Amino acid sequence: MSDSIRIIEVSPRDGLQNEKTAVPTPLKAEFIRALAKAGANEIEATSFVHPKWVPQLADAGELLSEIGDLLVRISTLVPNEKGLERAIENKVQAIALFTAASEDFVKNNINMSIDESLEVFARVISAYREAIPGGFVRAYVSTIVQCPIAGKIAPEKVASVCEKLLNLGVDELSLGDTIGVAVPNEIIKVASLLELLTEKSKIVWHFHDTRGTAIANVSAMLDRGYRAFDSSAAGLGGCPYAPGAGGNLATEDLVYFAERNGLTTGFDPVALAEASLPVLAVLGKDPFAKAQLATLAACR
Amino acid sequence: MSDSIRIIEVSPRDGLQNEKTAVPTPLKAEFIRALAKAGANEIEATSFVHPKWVPQLADAGELLSEIGDLLVRISTLVPNEKGLERAIENKVQAIALFTAASEDFVKNNINMSIDESLEVFARVISAYREAIPGGFVRAYVSTIVQCPIAGKIAPEKVASVCEKLLNLGVDELSLGDTIGVAVPNEIIKVASLLELLTEKSKIVWHFHDTRGTAIANVSAMLDRGYRAFDSSAAGLGGCPYAPGAGGNLATEDLVYFAERNGLTTGFDPVALAEASLPVLAVLGKDPFAKAQLATLAACR
Repeated sequence: MSDSIRIIEVSPRDGLQNEKTAVPTPLKAEFIRALAKAGANEIEATSFVHPKWVPQLADAGELLSEIGDLLVRISTLVPNEKGLERAIENKVQAIALFTAASEDFVKNNINMSIDESLEVFARVISAYREAIPGGFVRAYVSTIVQCPIAGKIAPEKVASVCEKLLNLGVDELSLGDTIGVAVPNEIIKVASLLELLTEKSKIVWHFHDTRGTAIANVSAMLDRGYRAFDSSAAGLGGCPYAPGAGGNLATEDLVYFAERNGLTTGFDPVALAEASLPVLAVLGKDPFAKAQLATLAACR
Repeated sequence: MSDSIRIIEVSPRDGLQNEKTAVPTPLKAEFIRALAKAGANEIEATSFVHPKWVPQLADAGELLSEIGDLLVRISTLVPNEKGLERAIENKVQAIALFTAASEDFVKNNINMSIDESLEVFARVISAYREAIPGGFVRAYVSTIVQCPIAGKIAPEKVASVCEKLLNLGVDELSLGDTIGVAVPNEIIKVASLLELLTEKSKIVWHFHDTRGTAIANVSAMLDRGYRAFDSSAAGLGGCPYAPGAGGNLATEDLVYFAERNGLTTGFDPVALAEASLPVLAVLGKDPFAKAQLATLAACR
């Protein structure tokens, strides 16, 4: 089994999208460069969502120009065919699509049924592959354990959505405990069904730490042989369903846990702990990720 | 296997002892009563340490009088024979003694070797049992994985100290990852040696969450059949070895994790999340424990 793990750094997109305070484009670019310098090999930079819905990410094209050619995989969320046009104009090397395992959640977020969202995916993937040969396609499946509207989600429902996505030819699935409620037993149930459909290397786990369970879930999935996780520097990105609560798993916590388990991440913990400080300052937040605080404290 | 867990709430003692801002005695008493009302069955209230060393806990006797007879087990840290005299005067029903698996740590904290600390324990336990028949004795063993001075600690050293403590007739051992560095594999190594010495019901795990690993360790020890954990409401208690970093595992995170795993804790999460707010206000801190924030956010 691999002695290294993949970390997909989602802070510039997932971490910032719900922040009301606008982060200037040059600062975002500096943040992304600092993350790459700290060791991030894969970064989700922004989203081609309509600026009306996510003003924070309205500068997507400008940002991609500003960061230029970094030697890391930069992905961009593409919510629909209009977003794809902009992605193709910007020649993005990786796109990410968004759906969920909860009908109510998809309806509420993008006003479609899950199957309708998959029909859009089919057209988007086909057009993207034609325009950008060799491009990479990831698909987010949110609310894999529980939905803020519909409550508990059956693992079979998650598997069914994943199977359809795999049939569309996505390169990987990012499976999200979107509201951060899950414990290992619940993730294991989902994993055991997915393992009937595809190899583990196509699965990325996207845990939220809203109730402090994310690293326990990482631990269980490492034990099970998974080696790819999404995370967000400084734990950026709160929980829109519990304002004031924590959101994304912090990359600092993930890197510490993996390295302490003898797994290579490629990250420099000090550079990582410092990478988000200018963005946190603009947002008016103090660092709050556990391993980040410990690293910064040890640096003093 | 038991479907409930024991939680030993250590915030009034372990959580406050390093806080510079004095918390008034009536507020501490109110805090302890609020914890008991929220569901805490076992609370470490204070310490009979010399007031010169820990001014915050100088009011130990007064505090115990003020809380009176709560229907929960109230324990008090007893650092030495002088402390025991005060404990006996106050007729405390449970005492806690302190040593570590690291010679350097014990030397640095109480200026003794481990064996010298155990000789004091022998006299303290004997005198306590004579004075308070039926009293309960717990022993803390700190730095079970790593010491801030000596570095990594061999699991065999931990087992050796624990064996001596068990031979002294302590009722339970509280095993601490004092600087919050451990991951499950490291705890499992310690546990597997302890299981050769005693039954699991005599072991309590005391994890610190300084780098976000505490709940993963709890998860591994629950899987292994352990059912008792120390924790601190609101995660009170920073890390003296990394000022500004987090310390104790938050009771809120532990309760959430256990209950989500189908284990009964006896705690009311909302009452628990609110119990520490007056103390946090006096200390000038915002709540920062993950599950506490999520509960408070959901209550708004």
